[in-house]
Amino acid sequence: MQNFDPSQPDGFNQTMDSSVSADGLPIIAERYTVPARSGVAVYLATGQTLTITNPTGWQVCDFWAFNAAELHEYMSMSHVHTDLLSVFPKVGDSLVSNLRNPLLTLTQDSSPGVHDTTIAACDANRYKQLGVPHYHENCADNLRQALLVIGQKAPLVPAPFNLWMNVPVAPDGSLAWAAPVSKPGEAITFKAEMPVYAVMSACPQDVTPVNGDEGQPSALEFVVHEG
Amino acid sequence: MQNFDPSQPDGFNQTMDSSVSADGLPIIAERYTVPARSGVAVYLATGQTLTITNPTGWQVCDFWAFNAAELHEYMSMSHVHTDLLSVFPKVGDSLVSNLRNPLLTLTQDSSPGVHDTTIAACDANRYKQLGVPHYHENCADNLRQALLVIGQKAPLVPAPFNLWMNVPVAPDGSLAWAAPVSKPGEAITFKAEMPVYAVMSACPQDVTPVNGDEGQPSALEFVVHEG
Repeated sequence: MQNFDPSQPDGFNQTMDSSVSADGLPIIAERYTVPARSGVAVYLATGQTLTITNPTGWQVCDFWAFNAAELHEYMSMSHVHTDLLSVFPKVGDSLVSNLRNPLLTLTQDSSPGVHDTTIAACDANRYKQLGVPHYHENCADNLRQALLVIGQKAPLVPAPFNLWMNVPVAPDGSLAWAAPVSKPGEAITFKAEMPVYAVMSACPQDVTPVNGDEGQPSALEFVVHEG
Repeated sequence: MQNFDPSQPDGFNQTMDSSVSADGLPIIAERYTVPARSGVAVYLATGQTLTITNPTGWQVCDFWAFNAAELHEYMSMSHVHTDLLSVFPKVGDSLVSNLRNPLLTLTQDSSPGVHDTTIAACDANRYKQLGVPHYHENCADNLRQALLVIGQKAPLVPAPFNLWMNVPVAPDGSLAWAAPVSKPGEAITFKAEMPVYAVMSACPQDVTPVNGDEGQPSALEFVVHEG
């Protein structure tokens, strides 16, 4: 445990072969895939938009954003809660950093808007606890690899914005795992408020029903446009 | 912003003079004070208990714990949510780290048990946004200073466990600032499940009603016992 490096994955997968380019710069209007169980990081200049599509409707996307000039500044769910006074961001809302600067604005959402901000990214230890005897792909490692492959390092694994993840919050504070309510082809769009690396992980969770009752992880798609 | 160091405070206060000792080791059964608007870090060996008392009843304590051997492992609210399937930890619950290891167990709570796990620590930027024209003491800087003064560095400012902070969560996900419901002298106790640095900040928030409608930050008290 001494000299633990948060940027290093516990294991590797096809994320290392799935980058959009060597430095994360995308081709504008090109349609990209986040392969099932994998992660991809993409650079967004100020004003550019990122649209993430859920082809199956049931696939959760663990989503992060980092200030491209200083990755110690990152989208922070606890700061988002404080800023919005809500655990459910909606169209028009800013998504702020740990320094309370807007990184992204949620500009469009064709899904019912059910996304989670309370739950941690799955990681190697999570699957051990769930009884998986071997290494299991996980969103934390997908984030780390997606950044490594474009020459960046995650200084930590922040709490993600879990797109299409359905975690109802009861008045007594209890949470539940529920299947996504989104439909095939629904999409969500973010506008960059500063240069950022946005990172998407097609959540490989197939033990709990996070990705629908069938538990079959699938791919996501995304496209970057000029604002 | 380049080479931002999360361990360095934006300003200093009496936290730099409030440590229990040079290395954070407490005298067992000694009653210590966290002065109003300040922070204190204390080392807990496995099995030792930390009891934090709220003399006024209205004072919020921003609370963190770090693996004493590796501060990149820290109590993580998003992992606590996943582990407990709740945003409100209760007596008997483990408080896990970002590596999903139990750091502390919440063993006793004489207050009504209303604590928050969704809101970020206040910081210099928060008070700027609230219109305070000068530097304002804040929980993020109290954490950083409390660790610096015992020779440790915060690798980040994790989302805190906000003891006695009353942030109701509505079914639509909206949050509210409400006054603490605790009474003078109520206390909460944690048992260390591994050697940790526990850090308490007597929240200096006097702009929003987090510390009661009077908004008068007050001191906290704590004591460490052998288990």
